[in-house]
Parts: sequence; C-alpha cells; structure tokens
Amino acid sequence: MLVNCVAYQNGKKLGDIPVAEISEYVTRPECFVWVALFEPPADEIDEMAREFDLHPLAVEDAHKGHQRPKIEEYDDSLFVVLHTLEPVSDAVDTTLIDGEVAIFVGRNYILSVRHRTKKGFNDVRARCEREPELLRHGSGFVLYALMDTVVDRYFPVLDAMESALEQIEENIFVRNAARSNIESLYALKQKLMLLKHAIDPLMEATGKLYGGRVPQVCAGMGEYFRDVYDHLHRIHGTIEAIRDMLTTAIQVNLGMISLAESEVTKKLAAWAAIIAVPTMLAGIYGMNFRHMPELDWAFGYPLAIAAMVAFDVFLYVRFKRTHWL
Amino acid sequence: MLVNCVAYQNGKKLGDIPVAEISEYVTRPECFVWVALFEPPADEIDEMAREFDLHPLAVEDAHKGHQRPKIEEYDDSLFVVLHTLEPVSDAVDTTLIDGEVAIFVGRNYILSVRHRTKKGFNDVRARCEREPELLRHGSGFVLYALMDTVVDRYFPVLDAMESALEQIEENIFVRNAARSNIESLYALKQKLMLLKHAIDPLMEATGKLYGGRVPQVCAGMGEYFRDVYDHLHRIHGTIEAIRDMLTTAIQVNLGMISLAESEVTKKLAAWAAIIAVPTMLAGIYGMNFRHMPELDWAFGYPLAIAAMVAFDVFLYVRFKRTHWL
Amino acid sequence: MLVNCVAYQNGKKLGDIPVAEISEYVTRPECFVWVALFEPPADEIDEMAREFDLHPLAVEDAHKGHQRPKIEEYDDSLFVVLHTLEPVSDAVDTTLIDGEVAIFVGRNYILSVRHRTKKGFNDVRARCEREPELLRHGSGFVLYALMDTVVDRYFPVLDAMESALEQIEENIFVRNAARSNIESLYALKQKLMLLKHAIDPLMEATGKLYGGRVPQVCAGMGEYFRDVYDHLHRIHGTIEAIRDMLTTAIQVNLGMISLAESEVTKKLAAWAAIIAVPTMLAGIYGMNFRHMPELDWAFGYPLAIAAMVAFDVFLYVRFKRTHWL
Amino acid sequence: MLVNCVAYQNGKKLGDIPVAEISEYVTRPECFVWVALFEPPADEIDEMAREFDLHPLAVEDAHKGHQRPKIEEYDDSLFVVLHTLEPVSDAVDTTLIDGEVAIFVGRNYILSVRHRTKKGFNDVRARCEREPELLRHGSGFVLYALMDTVVDRYFPVLDAMESALEQIEENIFVRNAARSNIESLYALKQKLMLLKHAIDPLMEATGKLYGGRVPQVCAGMGEYFRDVYDHLHRIHGTIEAIRDMLTTAIQVNLGMISLAESEVTKKLAAWAAIIAVPTMLAGIYGMNFRHMPELDWAFGYPLAIAAMVAFDVFLYVRFKRTHWL
Amino acid sequence: MLVNCVAYQNGKKLGDIPVAEISEYVTRPECFVWVALFEPPADEIDEMAREFDLHPLAVEDAHKGHQRPKIEEYDDSLFVVLHTLEPVSDAVDTTLIDGEVAIFVGRNYILSVRHRTKKGFNDVRARCEREPELLRHGSGFVLYALMDTVVDRYFPVLDAMESALEQIEENIFVRNAARSNIESLYALKQKLMLLKHAIDPLMEATGKLYGGRVPQVCAGMGEYFRDVYDHLHRIHGTIEAIRDMLTTAIQVNLGMISLAESEVTKKLAAWAAIIAVPTMLAGIYGMNFRHMPELDWAFGYPLAIAAMVAFDVFLYVRFKRTHWL
Repeated sequence: MLVNCVAYQNGKKLGDIPVAEISEYVTRPECFVWVALFEPPADEIDEMAREFDLHPLAVEDAHKGHQRPKIEEYDDSLFVVLHTLEPVSDAVDTTLIDGEVAIFVGRNYILSVRHRTKKGFNDVRARCEREPELLRHGSGFVLYALMDTVVDRYFPVLDAMESALEQIEENIFVRNAARSNIESLYALKQKLMLLKHAIDPLMEATGKLYGGRVPQVCAGMGEYFRDVYDHLHRIHGTIEAIRDMLTTAIQVNLGMISLAESEVTKKLAAWAAIIAVPTMLAGIYGMNFRHMPELDWAFGYPLAIAAMVAFDVFLYVRFKRTHWL
Repeated sequence: MLVNCVAYQNGKKLGDIPVAEISEYVTRPECFVWVALFEPPADEIDEMAREFDLHPLAVEDAHKGHQRPKIEEYDDSLFVVLHTLEPVSDAVDTTLIDGEVAIFVGRNYILSVRHRTKKGFNDVRARCEREPELLRHGSGFVLYALMDTVVDRYFPVLDAMESALEQIEENIFVRNAARSNIESLYALKQKLMLLKHAIDPLMEATGKLYGGRVPQVCAGMGEYFRDVYDHLHRIHGTIEAIRDMLTTAIQVNLGMISLAESEVTKKLAAWAAIIAVPTMLAGIYGMNFRHMPELDWAFGYPLAIAAMVAFDVFLYVRFKRTHWL
Repeated sequence: MLVNCVAYQNGKKLGDIPVAEISEYVTRPECFVWVALFEPPADEIDEMAREFDLHPLAVEDAHKGHQRPKIEEYDDSLFVVLHTLEPVSDAVDTTLIDGEVAIFVGRNYILSVRHRTKKGFNDVRARCEREPELLRHGSGFVLYALMDTVVDRYFPVLDAMESALEQIEENIFVRNAARSNIESLYALKQKLMLLKHAIDPLMEATGKLYGGRVPQVCAGMGEYFRDVYDHLHRIHGTIEAIRDMLTTAIQVNLGMISLAESEVTKKLAAWAAIIAVPTMLAGIYGMNFRHMPELDWAFGYPLAIAAMVAFDVFLYVRFKRTHWL
Repeated sequence: MLVNCVAYQNGKKLGDIPVAEISEYVTRPECFVWVALFEPPADEIDEMAREFDLHPLAVEDAHKGHQRPKIEEYDDSLFVVLHTLEPVSDAVDTTLIDGEVAIFVGRNYILSVRHRTKKGFNDVRARCEREPELLRHGSGFVLYALMDTVVDRYFPVLDAMESALEQIEENIFVRNAARSNIESLYALKQKLMLLKHAIDPLMEATGKLYGGRVPQVCAGMGEYFRDVYDHLHRIHGTIEAIRDMLTTAIQVNLGMISLAESEVTKKLAAWAAIIAVPTMLAGIYGMNFRHMPELDWAFGYPLAIAAMVAFDVFLYVRFKRTHWL
Repeated sequence: MLVNCVAYQNGKKLGDIPVAEISEYVTRPECFVWVALFEPPADEIDEMAREFDLHPLAVEDAHKGHQRPKIEEYDDSLFVVLHTLEPVSDAVDTTLIDGEVAIFVGRNYILSVRHRTKKGFNDVRARCEREPELLRHGSGFVLYALMDTVVDRYFPVLDAMESALEQIEENIFVRNAARSNIESLYALKQKLMLLKHAIDPLMEATGKLYGGRVPQVCAGMGEYFRDVYDHLHRIHGTIEAIRDMLTTAIQVNLGMISLAESEVTKKLAAWAAIIAVPTMLAGIYGMNFRHMPELDWAFGYPLAIAAMVAFDVFLYVRFKRTHWL
C-alpha cells in the first residue's frame, strides 16, 4: 500500500507526485523523493525497484522479508533493515509484535517499506517538514530521522522489561511464588532475546555510519549517526545487564525452591515425630501382656495421656526453637 | 561417480566433454569447465587433480574427507569445504545427516565433490544456464551459486530447530513433562552444535571473500559473497539465541523438577498427617488400661470415629488452603 | 541552580562573573570560565547553551538526563557524562543513589551539571585554585580533576561491596543461613551491576583521551587521563572478580541448601526408624492370638520394653556413627 | 640419549655424523643437520647448545622442561615446544601421558628433544628421506613434518573423546546411571582440558608461521604451516564443542538425578499410603470400646479385610494411573 | 627502611653510597644506582622522589599503595607495580599474603619498594653482581631480573593450587565428603582469584615491553621480557584451566549431593516398608473382632510371625537387588 510519495527541494515539500514520475524527479540534482509503503504487494515493490533503479539483491531481500537488521552498501546507495517491537496491549506481560522496516536510500531518494507494524512514520515526516534547514541535508537526514525514531521506540519496551524484572525481583524471596516467578523469568528472557536480536546487528552496522570511511549519503552527518549508535549502545548495555540479572535470578529462584523443599521436609519430619511418639506409647500400652502393672493403676490412663502430651509439648517447643516448625 | 562434466564459453554451455579433454579446455582463456562428482573413488579424484593441476594439500584433504568447513587459497585457486545437513525424515525429532561438499575453484574451472548428501546441485546448474549474463562472470559466480544454495538449505533446518524449541517451551511448565523435555532439549542442543559446526568456520572464511584483499576468482563479486556472509551471520545469530534459550530452558526445567518434587513432598506430608492422626487416636483407645471411662460410654465408639473424621476434615481444609493438596 | 560561575586567567581566579558575561570571557584567549550547576531548570540550561554555544545534540542529552556514561566529541569541544553512586546511609546493606554529572568542556570553558547527587565539587575547585601552576593547563585540567574525583569516589563504594562479599563468605558454610545468604548475594549483585554500568562505558571512553589521537582540550595531559583510566581499569577488574565470586557463591549456597536438605532427610529417617521399631514390636504383642506364650511370662512386659530400648540404643549408636544423627 | 645425528645435503642423506662434527657441517651453506634426542641428560643438551650455538634462554627452557606449547623466535632461529598425548592403554577410559617435544630450528639445523613420549619420529625421518624434492626445503620442511606428525597424533585422542562422549550420551537418560555418568563426564573433562592445554597456545603460535611477517626458516612454506594451523583450528573447534556439550550433559545429568529422586519420593509416598490405610483401619477395629457393633458381626472380620483390600486396590490403580507407581 | 643503596659502573659494583649522593651518581652516564626499600615511611619515599626526580603521579601511587599490577611509562622512566603472593605456612590450605613491590626505573637508576612481603631480592642482587656482562645492560636488566624473580615465585603457589585441586578431585566422588569438598573448592577459588588478580594486568602490561614500540630502558632486552611474558601467559593458561575445572567440580559436587540425598531417600523408603508391613499385619491381628478364626489356631501366632519375616525377607532381597539398600 502506498502511504506517501512526496518530492522535496532544498528542504521544502514540492508536493505529492505520482509514482510514475519518481524516476524523473530522482534525476534532478537538488531534489529528493521520499516514498513510504506499507505491506506492499510484490508488483508494487518491483515498480519502485524500476523507478529508483534499486539493486536486485536488496530488492530480493525486500520481497522475502524476515531479514535480520542490517545496513548494506550497494554502490552509492544503502539498504537498511530495522526491526520494530510493539507491545500488543498495555499489560505488563504483553507479547511483542516483531515488525520490520526496510529502507532504500540513495543520493536523492528514500523509500521505506513497513511490515507488521502498527505505528507509521507520519510524525517523522511532519517534524522533518517543520525543520527545512535540517531536511536540506537530503535523504541522509531522513534516514537518520527514521532510524532515530525506530530506536527511540525501543526505550519504552526496554523500560517495560526493567519494570517486569523489578516486579519479579520483589517476588523472588516470597514463599510459594517460585512457579510464577520462573514462568515470568522465562517469558522475560524470551522478550529480551527478541530485543537483543533487533539491537545487536543494528548497533554493529550503525557503527560504520560515522567515523572513518562513511557511505556517501551519510556524509557530514556523523554526529547524528553517532547519537543513534550511542542510543543503541545504551540499550545493548541494559540488555546485557538484564540478561545477567535474569541468569542470577533463575539460579536464585532455584535456590529458593530447594529451600522451600527443605522447609517442607523439616515440617513433615517435625509433625511426623509429634504424631509418632504418642502412637508408639499407645502401642506399648495396647500390648496384651498379662503382667503390666501400669494397666491396673487407677490413674494409669490419665498418666499415659499426660506423658503423651508432655512429650509432644517438649518436641513442639524444640522444633519451634530450631525453626523446623 | 561423475555427475556432470560441462564446458561453458561466455556464459553459454558448450556441451558435455570427456574428462580427458578437461586440461585442454581449461587453457582456453574464455572458457571454463564445471565438473560435479559424487562420492568419487580415489583414482577419480587423482585423475581430476592431474587434469586441473590441483594443489597436493587440497587433494589430500579431499581424499581424507571429514574436513571442517573452510576456504583456502592456493596461489590463484581456492579450495572450499562446505557441510550439508539433511534431515533423515520429516519428523520433528529427525536426526540430521552431516554431508560434505568440497569445491576446487580456479580461474576457469570449478570442481565439486559431494559426500554423504542426497540433494545434488542440478538445480543450481539449470538456473545458472538460464542466466548466461551472470554465468559470464565465470567460475567465481558458480562458486557463489553453490555456496548460496548450500547456505540457503540451512534455513529449513534452522526453522525446524526453532519450531522444536517453541514446542518444548510450550511444554516446559506442564507438569510431568520434565523427562521428555530434558531429553528433547538435549537432542536439540546436539543438532544445534552440528549446525554451529557447519556455520561458524564458514562464516569466518566467507568474510574474506569481500571487502579488502579478495582472491582473484571472486573479484568483482563482493556484493554477492557479502550476501552469503550476511545469511551465515543471520544463522549464526539465531544459533546463538537458540543456544542461550536452551541453556535457560534446561535451568528452568531443573527448577520445574525441583518444584514438582517439592509438591510431591507436600502431598506426601499432607496425606501422611491425614492417615496418621486417626491411627494415633485408634492406638490410644486400643490401650488396655483398666480404667478408661470413654470405653464404657454408649456413644464412645461413634464419638471416637467422629473425632477422627473431624480432625481429618480440619486437616484437609487447611492443606487445601495452603495448597499442599 | 547556579552553584558557581567563575572566570580564571593563567591559573588564577579572576572572580565570580554574572552569567550574561560568560560569552564575553570565553572569547578571551588566556581566560577560561568554570560554571557549576545543580539540577538546573530547562531554561537555565538553554541560557548556558547560548552563552557557551554548546552543540544542540549535547544540550538535548543534558535536558533529558538519564544518559549512560560517555565522552563525546563535538568539533573541538567534549560532552562528558559521569554517574555518581552515593550510599543512602552507612549501613552495610544500604541502597545506592545513582546520580549523574554532565560536563561540557571547550577550549576555554567548563560547565558541570549535577543531578541527584549530594556531594558537589567545591573541594575540587578549592584544590585547583590552590595549585595555579596546574590550573594553568586550563579546562582540560579541570576536566581531569572532576573525573578523577568522581572515579575516586567509587572506591569506598567498591570497598563496601568487597566487605559485604567477605561477610557473606563468612556465613556461607554456616547452617541455616542459606536464605539470608541468598538474599544478600542477590542484593550485592544488583549493586554491583549498578557500579558496572557506571564504570564500563566510561573506561572505554576514557581510553581515547590519551595515547593516539586525543581531543584538543586534553592535549598534553595524557599521563593524567591514563591515571584515571588506570583507576577505572582497576575498579573494572575488581568488579569482574566480585562477579565471578558471586556466581560461585550462589552455586555453593545452592549446594549448601541441598546438603542441609540431605541432612534433614537423614535425621528424619533415623528418628523414624527409632520410633517405628518399638511401635512394630508393640503391635506384635498387641495381637490377640490365643496362644502367645510370651504374654503369660511373668517378665514378658519388662523383657519387651527392654528389647525395644535395646533396639533403639543400637540404632541410635549406629546412626550417630554414620553421622545421620 | 642420542637417537640420530644425520647430515643432509640438497635433500639427500649424507650419513650419520659424530656429534663433535656438527658445528662444522652447520656452517656449510647447502647442508643441514637433523639431530634427535630422547630424554637427554643435562650435559648432552649443553653439548648440543655449544655445537649449534643455541640461545641461552631456549636452552634453559629445555633444561627445565614442563614448558607450555610455544614457538619462540631468537634472532633467525626458532624454539618450538609441542606436547604429545599418548593413551596408556586401549581402554576407553585410559589416562593420557602428557609428553613434551622441544625443537630447535636454525637455517641449517634441526634438533628435537623428546620427553615422556613412547612414539618417536623415525617414521617422519623415513618419509622425509623418501621425498628428497621436499626435503630440499631444508630445516623448515622438517619442522613442518614434525609438527604435522605431532598434530596428526592428536586426532585419535580427540576421536576417542568424541566416542567417550557419545557413550555417555547414550547412558545419560538411563535410570540409575547417574553416578557413573557423572564420574565419566568429569574424567572426560579432565582429559579434554589436557588436550586444550596442548592445542590452544600452539594454534596461536602457529598462526604466526604463515601470512604476514614469517620467521626466516619457514619462508616459502606458508601453505604447509597454514595446513597445520587448520588442523589445530579444527581440533580447537571440536574441543570447544565437546566442552559445551559436557557442560550441558552435566546439567542434564543433574536434572536426571533430581527426576530420579522425585520418582523415588512418589513411590515412597504411594507405598506408604497403601500400607498406612489398612494399618489405620486395623487400629480402629483394635480399639477397646465396649459398644462396637461391627466387632460382633459374624462377617465383621472378612468385611474389614475386604475393605482394606478394596482401599488398597483403589489406591494402587490411582497411583498407577498418575505414574506414581 | 632502606635495605640497600648501591652504585654500579659497567656492570660492576662501585659500593654502597649514601642516599644524599644518589642524585650525583644518577647524572654520570656510565653509572646506575640500585636502591631497595622495605615498607618505607612517607618521608623516605619523598626523599627518593627528590633524589631520582620521580614523576609525582607515580610517587602518589607509591604513597597510597594497594595498586593493581601495572607498568606505566612516564617520559623515559617506568613505574612498575607487582604483587607477591606468599603462603603463610606450609599447609595445603594455607592462606596467601598479598604483598606489593613498586619499582621505579630510569635510564640509570632502579628503585624497588616492597610492602607486606617476607622475601626480599638479595638473591637477585647477588646473582646480578655475579654476572657483570649481563648487568652491564643497566637498569633494564635489573628490572627484568626483579620481574623474573617475582613471576618465578608464582609457580610454587600455582603448583600448590594444582595439588589442592587434585586432592579435591580424588575426594569428589567419595560419599559424605560433599561438605568439605565444597568448602575446599570455594577456598581454592578465592586463592585462584587472588593469583589471577596479580597475573592478568601484569601479563597485559608486559606484552608492551617487547615487540613493536618499546620503552627506552627496556630496549635491546626484548627476548628477556618476552620470556617473562611467556611465563605469565603459562600461569594465566593454567589459572583459566583450574577455574574451568573448579566450576565443573562445583557442579559435579552438587550432583553428588543430590545423588546422596536420593540414596538416603531410597534407604529411608526401603526400611520404612520393611518396618511398616509387619506393623500392618500386627495391627490386623490386634483387631477385636469376635470371629477371627486365625486367632484361635494353635499355630496362629508363629504363622503370623513367619508371615512377617517372610514379607520382610522378600522386601529386603528386592531392595538389595534394585540397590535401594
């Protein structure tokens, strides 16, 4: 689906243009064309490939979809794949939708193709059009703006993960929470791996957009792309820290399960003793020996009961003291 | 076994040629010869070595087989070893056959030797012959086409592993599934290591086929080999992610086993108490003291039974509430 | 809040100056201005940005706050973010407040912005003013002095962690301390990750302030910044060592829990046997067979009791010997 | 002990020479001398040091023995230390003897010193003498031949480890094999570390014998040493894979132990219930209440027994169904 | 405390000189001064700093002490910090004292400052004075001799750790040794981390004293410092191997604890059954039904006892066979 197809000149919007005229605008040196597609059918991509003269390997990747995040240089154009992660709902344990944005950037065009994402980039376009002095940098600046937006959208996802971890951490030493803790920890780990998968290859690739040898379209924008890199690096650092804490939390949770087991065993042992001792005594006075003087005593029975109670009180106090009960 | 032996000129098939004439075609500058062997006997390899003038160390490796994946440069020729992984059946838990393809590439020849693989490369040859404008690049392009095909065949294997992991993950918190989970996790890990073994050295080696100093036969095809590298890198990333999740899943499974044990112990303790208390009471009224007033009561027996039931109901409710039962 | 705003010339204090005159002093070649802010409102930052002509991306970061530690170069100025970690109280298990200091450094100005920190840098300023021969180096030396101070303040935090670890290690083989140990270990790990988060990116960045290509403002001060780097590296090494020991300690603690469980089970088994054997004997002599000669013996009862005691003494001694009791 | 002392010229054997004449042959440009020692006494090494003019630090290492594998360059000579691993017997769980070979190589000499190894290098010498066209390369080729032989001898050791792992893997899910599994896993790990210790430093060092700047004696033999490197790299990869699987196998084994424990507890609980229920019923009918109508019934006793049996059958079926029995 | 203060010329001892004359000797080109201090008071360090004109940052570090091992270059002098590890006693489980040696080296002086170490370097000085041809290299050679000595003193410490590990490994599969094993493993890990802390930063730093750009004072002694590096690398490798084995040993020990627990549970279950079955039978014949024909049989009692014994023998044999007993 074609979302927008707009031509810009010197940072200012010229107006929407028909797709068939793209190839004409692209040749004007001071112009650039910015096209946005959303889940386009195969022939729409092919049409764009013809208009913009895109590299066949990049086009093939766009057709197939499900690419890992990357930035590839084809002659003087770039092919960028970003992943988006959108929560399905506002719940803490919501699942994440793993969307994809493919961006083709040349000296005077930029084409974005979204897949499986709800949020578009209309706000990016609006902001860019409000800042013509920056938009004058051309397609490189738009690329920065798009990447910056996608990366900034990771932060709430990351924050939600940190909150989820904190919530689990609060429960980790609570008795009887081990099962739900372990399920939450595993679910969190799964989401974290998704984010890691979106971040790590991108970080690596973005590191090549500033500093030494930089692709032509990004020239002169090093500080901007370093800023994106910096954000990615920060997310990366936090992911690694969460991952490390998750591993520790799972180990600790395992320890808590063993501890709980140990406490149950102690309780079982204590109560078993408290019940078994009177049972043994009762068994003794239930023996049928002819000569058992206690049986004939007037207070034999109450004394026996008293002995049982006394034993049990003694045991109970002892077990309480050693924290078996 | 000789599968094919074909000469090409300017990207077009000249026709099948006898093995003995290879050395002649190889000297023609605009020609190249593409030979495919399948599990050849030793003398067939030696014959090829003579016709193509292959490097003795590479030939020795081809004789021995069981090489790790690699790309070696001998003067201006390359020796490439790839591993193939083919599922024995369509079952989820099928084992994988670890096959091997050795490829000798020179400026105007390419020789592939398959071992322990079912699928050949006839489709690669057919596609190449349909695209003479690409085949004109010569043996370097054929090398790319073969590597691309082998690497693309890893994806269904990887997808099957991801599905297997997801299937285990669905069962991981199911009670009484711990044994089958742990067996599946271990089997999956074994397969994953096989794939890792096929991918990692190859990825490392492929990284040298584009960018800086590139072997002569791959010159001008950097973007193609980078594409192969990119696929390998993607597989590598997914393998690492699966590996990480496997480690976590094994830990979590261990936790679930401990939890299950803990729950069994609780149940055991609860039922033990429910049985032991009436047994103790019965023991007490089974004592043979002469003076036990309760024994003579008309409702002594029903009262005793009622006491037992009451105790047990009390215990049952309590254990239910604390989730021991 | 403006803490200080002072101009210096040739290492000597000229005096406090009004904010509006900063831009004037900054242009004098032999002068530099050192401004300290504490949790400034947005417009105060903007005013400084205008006076010092700061880079918009750096200013945006200062507005947002919550940056990871970093050193960024904008043309011939630097933007440095440091984290501070201050214990809330003197208790061993006190939580740490994660504060932030942003520093803008140019050839003849230095602006520090503190957030969420109690301790300021008045002592740094005082020391610098006492050493005019060093202060003559200009803003680069002040940057060193500030970084050195922030880094030196990590050491007591690190020492407290080492003490905490030692304290846990003393308890790790103590019986019944497993629960509190595991809680302490987890809390320590959380704090350690906080410190790691403050140190690691900073160490990486500081490594670029000496040696090869160095930012202009740090020129000629390589030995000083290497000293800071060396301190950070030392902290980093200690963090890694603590982390490693923590992992081992958690594992060992898990082992101690299992051992304790094992010992409880042994005790349970031993006492169960000691009670069950007399119960069984009593049960046997409680049977109602008509012909049980022992029942009629004059010493039947005492003999039975004696047998029970004998059995139990035997069991008790045996269990003692095998350390089940 | 002197094993051999032979002079070669243009790849052909000149004949055995007395030790005292070594220094003379070494000066002839077209000659080289190949000496093999086995566990030589200190003065024999010193004599060689004089004849070959070896570097004192290398000689000191040879005296001390127990060096880690390494390749050191002293001016235009090399000092190489290799470890050999020989199984004591043919048993799967045989221990390995960790031997050592020190090699001194100069432009026209090669001296090998074996320690604690059974197998010598007579086969290497024989093969070299059969291939004079290769031996013409001089001492560099002999070095390659020795290293290649030592490295090739690691393969059967590695294969034995892989077999051992497979054998353990077959047993890992077998009940009651946990103890022997864990012992085998640990023993395997120990051997693996021994091999790793022999391989890793050597791989690192061998990587410097081809490619960029290469020691003089190895010049022009890059492809051969890369082949040795490749073998070492392959072994390294397999070691890492085995190590990873070992870690997983130990974890899984721990899980199997817990599972087995869990199953024992279930069985214990089930049988306890099956015994306890009749015991309770018997206890009830063993009470001495005067008014217990069931006691006087003609079929009271058989009914009671029937009730016990019925309960137990019910329990048995239930436990079977839930797989507690 | 001043230990020695000696001037050397052309590798020969000139004689002890008073501290106040150091600055004079230092200026003579063919001389160098070698001073050894042991736990000097602050003013003694300051005096040396003046005499040798040491760099203030290095002096500050020497004052503070508790530096991590490092080698720092200040203009054409070096500041080296080494850690020493001395066992308190000869016992296997002795603790280690973590001492420190700071060394200041310039073109014609070397100053060593020892802290918390028993062993001094008189043997180094004596050996150096016996080898004037080496001592002629000047302060660089003395630095090598000191570093070599400190590093060589790590070997017995490392050997003691390897012995300790072997001793634990012998006990690891012994029953009932789990607690002492785990304590030993943890203590060993602590010592290992101490050694790692002493080795790793030093190895990194020593790597810069040979090869490419080398500090002036070490020029021409590359082979010597590489030898030190090689020793450090060997220790490093062994530390990593021990660390890996320790981790495995702790895991295995955990497995042994679980196994032992499992065996106790089996034993408990087996004996419980052996006791419970006769108890149940006795309970049945203790019931008070009027019509229980067995009770009136002449051989009822012996038969009942026989039945009990038979059951128990059956159970005992079965449990023995399944290794529960």
